[in-house]
Amino acid sequence: MSEQKIPYKMYLEESEMPLAWYNVRADMKNKPAPLLNPGTHKPMTAEELSPVFCDELIRQELDDTTAYFPIPEEIRSFYRMYRPSPLVRAYCLEERLQTPAKIYYKFEGNNTSGSHKLNSAIAQAYYAKQQGLKGVTTETGAGQWGTALAMACAYLGLDCKVYMVKVSYEQKPFRREVMRTYGASVTPSPSMDTEVGRRILAEHPGTGGSLGCAISEAVEAAETQPGYRYVLGSVLNQVLLHQSVIGLEAKAALDKYGVRPDIIIGCAGGGSNLGGLISPFMGEQLRGEASYRFIAVEPASCPSFTRGRFAYDFCDTGKVCPLAKMYTLGSGFMPAPNHAGGLRYHGMSPVLSQLYHDGLMEAVSVKQTEVFEAAEYFARVEGILPAPESSHAIKVAIDEALRCKETGEEKTILFGLTGTGYFDMLAYEKFHDGKMTDYIPTDGEIQATLDQLPQV
Amino acid sequence: MSEQKIPYKMYLEESEMPLAWYNVRADMKNKPAPLLNPGTHKPMTAEELSPVFCDELIRQELDDTTAYFPIPEEIRSFYRMYRPSPLVRAYCLEERLQTPAKIYYKFEGNNTSGSHKLNSAIAQAYYAKQQGLKGVTTETGAGQWGTALAMACAYLGLDCKVYMVKVSYEQKPFRREVMRTYGASVTPSPSMDTEVGRRILAEHPGTGGSLGCAISEAVEAAETQPGYRYVLGSVLNQVLLHQSVIGLEAKAALDKYGVRPDIIIGCAGGGSNLGGLISPFMGEQLRGEASYRFIAVEPASCPSFTRGRFAYDFCDTGKVCPLAKMYTLGSGFMPAPNHAGGLRYHGMSPVLSQLYHDGLMEAVSVKQTEVFEAAEYFARVEGILPAPESSHAIKVAIDEALRCKETGEEKTILFGLTGTGYFDMLAYEKFHDGKMTDYIPTDGEIQATLDQLPQV
Repeated sequence: MSEQKIPYKMYLEESEMPLAWYNVRADMKNKPAPLLNPGTHKPMTAEELSPVFCDELIRQELDDTTAYFPIPEEIRSFYRMYRPSPLVRAYCLEERLQTPAKIYYKFEGNNTSGSHKLNSAIAQAYYAKQQGLKGVTTETGAGQWGTALAMACAYLGLDCKVYMVKVSYEQKPFRREVMRTYGASVTPSPSMDTEVGRRILAEHPGTGGSLGCAISEAVEAAETQPGYRYVLGSVLNQVLLHQSVIGLEAKAALDKYGVRPDIIIGCAGGGSNLGGLISPFMGEQLRGEASYRFIAVEPASCPSFTRGRFAYDFCDTGKVCPLAKMYTLGSGFMPAPNHAGGLRYHGMSPVLSQLYHDGLMEAVSVKQTEVFEAAEYFARVEGILPAPESSHAIKVAIDEALRCKETGEEKTILFGLTGTGYFDMLAYEKFHDGKMTDYIPTDGEIQATLDQLPQV
Repeated sequence: MSEQKIPYKMYLEESEMPLAWYNVRADMKNKPAPLLNPGTHKPMTAEELSPVFCDELIRQELDDTTAYFPIPEEIRSFYRMYRPSPLVRAYCLEERLQTPAKIYYKFEGNNTSGSHKLNSAIAQAYYAKQQGLKGVTTETGAGQWGTALAMACAYLGLDCKVYMVKVSYEQKPFRREVMRTYGASVTPSPSMDTEVGRRILAEHPGTGGSLGCAISEAVEAAETQPGYRYVLGSVLNQVLLHQSVIGLEAKAALDKYGVRPDIIIGCAGGGSNLGGLISPFMGEQLRGEASYRFIAVEPASCPSFTRGRFAYDFCDTGKVCPLAKMYTLGSGFMPAPNHAGGLRYHGMSPVLSQLYHDGLMEAVSVKQTEVFEAAEYFARVEGILPAPESSHAIKVAIDEALRCKETGEEKTILFGLTGTGYFDMLAYEKFHDGKMTDYIPTDGEIQATLDQLPQV
């Protein structure tokens, strides 16, 4: 198909939107290891998970053989408010870089949550509603996930309780207000609302909180209040399943124009976006139908893949959640205050961890300042102001495009642009003022937290 | 055409995008009155305007007979990065309101400037570049226009100097950082950079500035620096011309699905969005081909149409700009601190003023708190977090839809959703906290500034 026919924005028709999510585990020979009960070290059963998670979501979490899960019509109807998301041909970026590479990005930022998180938030809220629950609880750090969940709950008329890391609650008042606009109750964590919160406050008065502590509070709130369950925005298998809508749409749009990517790039924190983007392509590769280069990009300040260990670990720093087998820096690892809050997670999706362990995916880490350089460059050329998280993928996409310039190869690059940076302007300000630094943990720091991994 | 076939988002193909802007003045029997030289009270000539404005933009400003101006390919290429913008069928809103009305909105917020302002910013920057200029100067209050211009200039490699009302500069640091991300220099106004700025600072040390003062500084900066011209984001005829792309796209999408609106609603500050949205529809009406109800919505705190006078007045409070014949509250009118900064303007587009004066358009004013109620309602139902400015149109669209519910009429309503409210969360916070008030100027206040109108 000729070059000129590819528009800047490749939109699918609503009728071309995916009817089912794709579960990449179905095509994996080496399945991701099961979640373990932290007490018994035996695989978690549906019964054990049910006080915390909704029943249908548990079913999705544990099912590693069903390839497709139909997307319920009510979720598809919500998706139609902001999906299909555009697949953009980055003509301007290509021209500015003077690269023979063809660059595409799947842009998930054109909704009020500002990121791809909404894709799973609406699914999780929907199943909670289906089960007749009153509401859901969750934690949020940077705020994208909390915002997405608040939007989904407002749409369905479900109560939404968000525990927001106290320091973010204070430093990101605007994110908090967006959640309040959608009717969510937002509590700075640690709080006096929960036992774990009161204990932490007694031990560390004046603490700014942490994601681990907020998770523990949200889980306790779900377990102790009738009619509530806990929901999580990344890491879990169910989240990757829902996020497969990103990859399915991207693939459908590319197929429509006869385009096949050589390299697929995504940023990786807990893995929700990367997992969703690559799923259908990885499926083809696992079935031997095609071959791609997959690259996970993580911050040098929190390098789970590139410097972590593939082992069972707690999903939260509070150690109340099940154990997951994943690339981890240790649940006690405290990432430096990198501005890509969504990537500051010690672990990684068990699905992606298994794929990486099996050599089916690459990973690289990049420094914060070079990420912001790429972000600003991209903003000026392509117009979109990217989130710091997304900019990790931009950085590596540009690197790969420049490599093509050197070699003269006309590779096709696809990357995930997960969201916008409108609520990250403090970080941009630091960058403009030359006050941004790069934190890279020492080997000793990482070893210290890896030494604390549970013995399984 | 059957109901079901209309998707949630009616996107045009890139090949269906307008090739030319439409100049509604060409079809007006009563043309808008010309700009007058404030000294001589004679119509401004192209020569008199040329130290301040670009030549091609002056041509567009003064031409009230040419119906179509071709959109240069470089501008169309930029448009393709974020246009066509979606025309959304508000199915969710209709259902929640239980109205027989059909509601559509043209959404201009899906670009980094967060509003429709980019449509004219790229055009004005393009002609400045064409003329071989080094850069442009402008003022910004709320920041949408400054952001849009910074983006356009970054794309074209043009220097961009923004004078930002000091109080906004300090209260909206994130807007300022977005502009810096796009390489613009942002100066809090009044500043020591200009003679007028120094004079004002000497007279009023510690002032937070005003839009009028920022305009005066930007105009002086353009006149005194070789290779610079001044650009303005609203009010002017040229701006309405560029913004006609909104209405042309909306009309093309509606025509494609055989839909004809009965009522067309837009918020009105200087008139750039409303003018752009209604232009092609008004053209049909002026040519006797169709008939529509047009409604301009303005804040009760700054009611130019509904309580102002149709008279010659200064476009700026600093009284350095030409006189325009328009609905005005007097250039000395100081609007109360309404949160819809983009609507706090004492005057109104001369084109819209003439149309309103000729009875071709209606106008209503709405109170700030009811606007935020509508905004929050809309956000929860339709997902999009609207700008306070845009929410004026939402408020009246909902009112009209509820009226249809009472009468049982199946009217088709189209409104302009000019932008997103991500940088307006302080206003939402005030609303959530019950601290928002409604300011309505007294008759005495308005009379006092109307008494100061120039004698023409």
